[in-house]
Amino acid sequence: MRILVVNPNTTASMTAKIGAAARSAAAPGTEVIAVNPPDGPVSIEGYYDEVFSIPGLIAEIRRHPDMDAYIIACFDDTGLDAARCATSAPVIGIGEAAFHMASLVAGRFGVVTTLARSVPAIEHNLKRYGLMERCARVRSSEVAVLELEEPGSNASARILDEMRRSLAEDRAEAIVLGCAGMADLAGRLSQEVGVPVLDGVACAVKLAEALVQLGLRTSKVGGYAPPRPKSYTGIFSHLAPGA
Amino acid sequence: MRILVVNPNTTASMTAKIGAAARSAAAPGTEVIAVNPPDGPVSIEGYYDEVFSIPGLIAEIRRHPDMDAYIIACFDDTGLDAARCATSAPVIGIGEAAFHMASLVAGRFGVVTTLARSVPAIEHNLKRYGLMERCARVRSSEVAVLELEEPGSNASARILDEMRRSLAEDRAEAIVLGCAGMADLAGRLSQEVGVPVLDGVACAVKLAEALVQLGLRTSKVGGYAPPRPKSYTGIFSHLAPGA
Amino acid sequence: MRILVVNPNTTASMTAKIGAAARSAAAPGTEVIAVNPPDGPVSIEGYYDEVFSIPGLIAEIRRHPDMDAYIIACFDDTGLDAARCATSAPVIGIGEAAFHMASLVAGRFGVVTTLARSVPAIEHNLKRYGLMERCARVRSSEVAVLELEEPGSNASARILDEMRRSLAEDRAEAIVLGCAGMADLAGRLSQEVGVPVLDGVACAVKLAEALVQLGLRTSKVGGYAPPRPKSYTGIFSHLAPGA
Amino acid sequence: MRILVVNPNTTASMTAKIGAAARSAAAPGTEVIAVNPPDGPVSIEGYYDEVFSIPGLIAEIRRHPDMDAYIIACFDDTGLDAARCATSAPVIGIGEAAFHMASLVAGRFGVVTTLARSVPAIEHNLKRYGLMERCARVRSSEVAVLELEEPGSNASARILDEMRRSLAEDRAEAIVLGCAGMADLAGRLSQEVGVPVLDGVACAVKLAEALVQLGLRTSKVGGYAPPRPKSYTGIFSHLAPGA
Amino acid sequence: MRILVVNPNTTASMTAKIGAAARSAAAPGTEVIAVNPPDGPVSIEGYYDEVFSIPGLIAEIRRHPDMDAYIIACFDDTGLDAARCATSAPVIGIGEAAFHMASLVAGRFGVVTTLARSVPAIEHNLKRYGLMERCARVRSSEVAVLELEEPGSNASARILDEMRRSLAEDRAEAIVLGCAGMADLAGRLSQEVGVPVLDGVACAVKLAEALVQLGLRTSKVGGYAPPRPKSYTGIFSHLAPGA
Amino acid sequence: MRILVVNPNTTASMTAKIGAAARSAAAPGTEVIAVNPPDGPVSIEGYYDEVFSIPGLIAEIRRHPDMDAYIIACFDDTGLDAARCATSAPVIGIGEAAFHMASLVAGRFGVVTTLARSVPAIEHNLKRYGLMERCARVRSSEVAVLELEEPGSNASARILDEMRRSLAEDRAEAIVLGCAGMADLAGRLSQEVGVPVLDGVACAVKLAEALVQLGLRTSKVGGYAPPRPKSYTGIFSHLAPGA
Repeated sequence: MRILVVNPNTTASMTAKIGAAARSAAAPGTEVIAVNPPDGPVSIEGYYDEVFSIPGLIAEIRRHPDMDAYIIACFDDTGLDAARCATSAPVIGIGEAAFHMASLVAGRFGVVTTLARSVPAIEHNLKRYGLMERCARVRSSEVAVLELEEPGSNASARILDEMRRSLAEDRAEAIVLGCAGMADLAGRLSQEVGVPVLDGVACAVKLAEALVQLGLRTSKVGGYAPPRPKSYTGIFSHLAPGA
Repeated sequence: MRILVVNPNTTASMTAKIGAAARSAAAPGTEVIAVNPPDGPVSIEGYYDEVFSIPGLIAEIRRHPDMDAYIIACFDDTGLDAARCATSAPVIGIGEAAFHMASLVAGRFGVVTTLARSVPAIEHNLKRYGLMERCARVRSSEVAVLELEEPGSNASARILDEMRRSLAEDRAEAIVLGCAGMADLAGRLSQEVGVPVLDGVACAVKLAEALVQLGLRTSKVGGYAPPRPKSYTGIFSHLAPGA
Repeated sequence: MRILVVNPNTTASMTAKIGAAARSAAAPGTEVIAVNPPDGPVSIEGYYDEVFSIPGLIAEIRRHPDMDAYIIACFDDTGLDAARCATSAPVIGIGEAAFHMASLVAGRFGVVTTLARSVPAIEHNLKRYGLMERCARVRSSEVAVLELEEPGSNASARILDEMRRSLAEDRAEAIVLGCAGMADLAGRLSQEVGVPVLDGVACAVKLAEALVQLGLRTSKVGGYAPPRPKSYTGIFSHLAPGA
Repeated sequence: MRILVVNPNTTASMTAKIGAAARSAAAPGTEVIAVNPPDGPVSIEGYYDEVFSIPGLIAEIRRHPDMDAYIIACFDDTGLDAARCATSAPVIGIGEAAFHMASLVAGRFGVVTTLARSVPAIEHNLKRYGLMERCARVRSSEVAVLELEEPGSNASARILDEMRRSLAEDRAEAIVLGCAGMADLAGRLSQEVGVPVLDGVACAVKLAEALVQLGLRTSKVGGYAPPRPKSYTGIFSHLAPGA
Repeated sequence: MRILVVNPNTTASMTAKIGAAARSAAAPGTEVIAVNPPDGPVSIEGYYDEVFSIPGLIAEIRRHPDMDAYIIACFDDTGLDAARCATSAPVIGIGEAAFHMASLVAGRFGVVTTLARSVPAIEHNLKRYGLMERCARVRSSEVAVLELEEPGSNASARILDEMRRSLAEDRAEAIVLGCAGMADLAGRLSQEVGVPVLDGVACAVKLAEALVQLGLRTSKVGGYAPPRPKSYTGIFSHLAPGA
Repeated sequence: MRILVVNPNTTASMTAKIGAAARSAAAPGTEVIAVNPPDGPVSIEGYYDEVFSIPGLIAEIRRHPDMDAYIIACFDDTGLDAARCATSAPVIGIGEAAFHMASLVAGRFGVVTTLARSVPAIEHNLKRYGLMERCARVRSSEVAVLELEEPGSNASARILDEMRRSLAEDRAEAIVLGCAGMADLAGRLSQEVGVPVLDGVACAVKLAEALVQLGLRTSKVGGYAPPRPKSYTGIFSHLAPGA
């Protein structure tokens, strides 16, 4: 089985970290291909960055048409709906993956993400998925995405602080880490706080494997129907449906 | 006052129709500039098309930095959140504009849009805005967007049919037309059905004028904070925040 | 265009302040007529006062049948549903006006009103309108309505305090002022806190103008159908439908 | 124990029928006093009629200050919030009474009311109470309120028709009769359809007795605090708080 | 009228206290029979205990087939749905009883229960009933169920503390006591805090009496249909439907 | 990895079919042990049957303490909360498993279950999980559970009929089969209708494997804390916590 993991930002070190996390979660027969688009923001922090990461994300999916499943490795599940239109193979966002898995091990989970500006997008996703019902609160640690890449930063301490507040003040029973760049922290932080701590990258890999093994593919009835053939003008003409 | 109306698809005839509708709704002192991006889909029908229209939409907003307000003339409110980050002037989507205005003249409104594939995106917006509570049902007429541009089509008859079903079966008290390309139909169809029929383009123009006159601009606290300065690589480098 | 602004309480100084606020928001061609009923409470603070203000409010609307639109200048949107039955011209409550406009400039708004006893009525309205989804919290400043009319009071300082709490503790991104008597404070307080601050009177004027210019009138299908002709006995006989 | 049952419309024959229904539900030691105000609409059919019935309703409550409990015998629970402010004795609306009792004998209930115009007000109440969650659908039989008073009308047949649709199409498990004027129909119609059929008048009497026996009175913290002393001008001056 | 009150745990002293509370709430003609099953947990504190109390609870109901109504005297409304299938006489849980009654005397109520582990089950019930809308927050006092039986414990002081927090921090307007073992505390604590304090046992008795007097029985359409005749194997064979 | 699949009813042929379905979904290294309790109903059809299946279910989990994960193979997720208290290994219900997986391949799914009486329990679960938001409607095929075991029945044709209605009338985009006894039908029915059809048994196996491989176990903070040590009397004494 081959799974394409797309980091929708353009920071190769983060792609490497995400790829490693994905591989370490993958089953023996699963090949993980981790890529990022050449075009777009170096990190995704809020709505503006998001929209410039999506064309590259879709292009990567189209460039790798023979995959068994696709993972979008941005916690905002950036471009998830469009990606589901672009292929009939399963597509999983790491945000939704973590929310669904957390719902299986806890009645109520908290989310700790990077910056305050990213909170509303995550809340919107939770509402759409229905899982806001299960979420105690989305908290920000005020750690920027690329700080997570800096060796000497105190990022994980600040994340841990916010996790503790989530447990004490919001009555969370498990914690979802709200950024792909936190993929390497779940294990250690779970030991610190004594509740399940979920990293979306690992969760998404297992869910992608599960869907593939079950033969489940995206429904093509309704919102995820294949895009209608039509022209796209200018720089996106090669990405038109059917092009 | 100058309002930029961006049709996020690349069909100039539709931009012209939208511009005319906007101008006919505008107050005397309001100048409407209607544009569409050079790059992207010729029509927006579903999630896939949407994401390729947004970079061009944002580019148009950046290209016209001195406007008093901006209108996104796609009923899905495509790229609305990102656009709100890109400027502190008010930005209004024609979908939300119609929903809010309909809420002022009816307890419960129906929406009649183009294709079934567009229904989920509209429903998601209604949920986010809170106004699903006021919406009887989102119906599709199975009229494609560009059919609305064809002189001899029976598009308006099919839309009218669906409007009548919305009133009879869903207990709607007003009808929102669910596509920018229907902007010229509201007046006539309202006479046919005897309830308010709302076109989002006209609604958005009035709301944009209202916000400007009240001196209200987008809050920069929270999700609509200006994007953090950072590099964008490749074809989007000129659209990086601060670039 | 002529807009009747009804202050449903009987305090003339407040009617004057509301009228001034409405006029200063109105477009050049808009004539604002500000009135209050002769019968009823001197201020509206909670459910009990509300119901004694509504017959007078409806009487004022009937007394001015040729208006293009009507505004109810009490933040509880007192009598809004009945008023919408009484005329087919648009009727707007200042509460709903502010909530809808705030939804266009912020993802999430806070409300700061007068007394704790008024909070539940405002919360009920927000739920009905669907916009509780967008509201961070309704807070009371414990400033009584008529204190807002007293020159030397520290009312605005106490309101400002509560606004700051709304931003810091509730993550509001904009503030709605929850009383018609605060109409003169929005501009100054917005400068203090650096986020949009909305006064419902001004918002309602712009929305009323917008509906009139769009030719949108209240739907007469459903809950806002004209009242059925019937007798009213006693002191209300002259207000019977058709009387 | 003495319970005041206020029919807020001014039709004495309906007051008599409601009084009889209340008495037949009352426990031996309960005295039912059924009254209607001298001023107001002869029937309540929609929002407009509602607001002219409330001052008279409140006046009746004030005129009978020594009651152990008060019942508002209009299915819209007209004036319920204001009435709760006016006394610390329990006040129960017949709509809420029926909804709560139906929730104890069925997972999901339907409501069959008089006219379509009354449906939105009932739906708003259900949302406020939280019990929309339990309601399958509010249906109208298009029987006017005073038709229920006409001996030879086919009103009950039309109501029965709509009850059958509620069971078959909406999966209701019990039926709430949505008008005080239907108080005499519950027993017979329940036998016809084989599920519980609830009349709000009887339900309210039992709930009022229950609250009195438990010593439970309306909370005076929050929205139901006693109205603040103040002047009312004009025809309502004698109904000012403290007057 | 005869009402069976089943304490689903096996602690006889608690059954006695519950029986006394029920009798003191009962009307003169009501006979209260208080029982507990011989098999099961000595107290119910969380999901695990719950499921071992239900077979005994159902057995008690079957053992007393001629009752007019049944009350389940555990605040989690343990086994309520199954019990409603087992008989067509009314069955009331003390949790739902208190929630419904609190909704009649306050806009918003708080719940104070025993242990944190019991909070999620209560929250689930509130959501199902629809009444989470009315609940300010479910708080735990960290008093274990059987501590309530110990004469010298400071249990009521700790409950009172939490009630005060509910009023001050959650804006509750009334308090529901969240354990059958608190049945004797309502009167005294209500005097301490000055708002209505509700004990579910007393509320359930009055509601059971009310339903019986109204002739209302559980709907047998839908989820509460009588169980289909079938075999049960092993230790439960005598409890099979029809056995 | 060893997974215990508990069919909570006592019909061995159904346990065998479920075991086979589980094994065919399992990864090579996964050992599936399928059991059913000796005590309880031969099929679970509604709330009454449910409660007599849970003690046996819990006993099976305790009897097999060394499993890596547990699956409850009843679509009502019978006893799921109690089971999660009984072990810290992951426990998955087949209902929730199917709902979560369906949410990854469709915006909106329908459920087709056996009897109407089972619909409310499934709806309650969907509400608790938050996923009612994603569910188009729960439909019953009026096929009894054990009919699914009869070779010559037309059960699958009736289920297929209802699936088609779900797609056409409810706008479902995928179908969840609402009974463990339908585990063998998913593949064939999916081909018939052309959308994803999900069987909860297979979904649960993959989710259980995923959780185990990720090292995720049930949170022991909150509602799933280990039951407090205490005595259980009578027939359940050996199942007391710590016993």
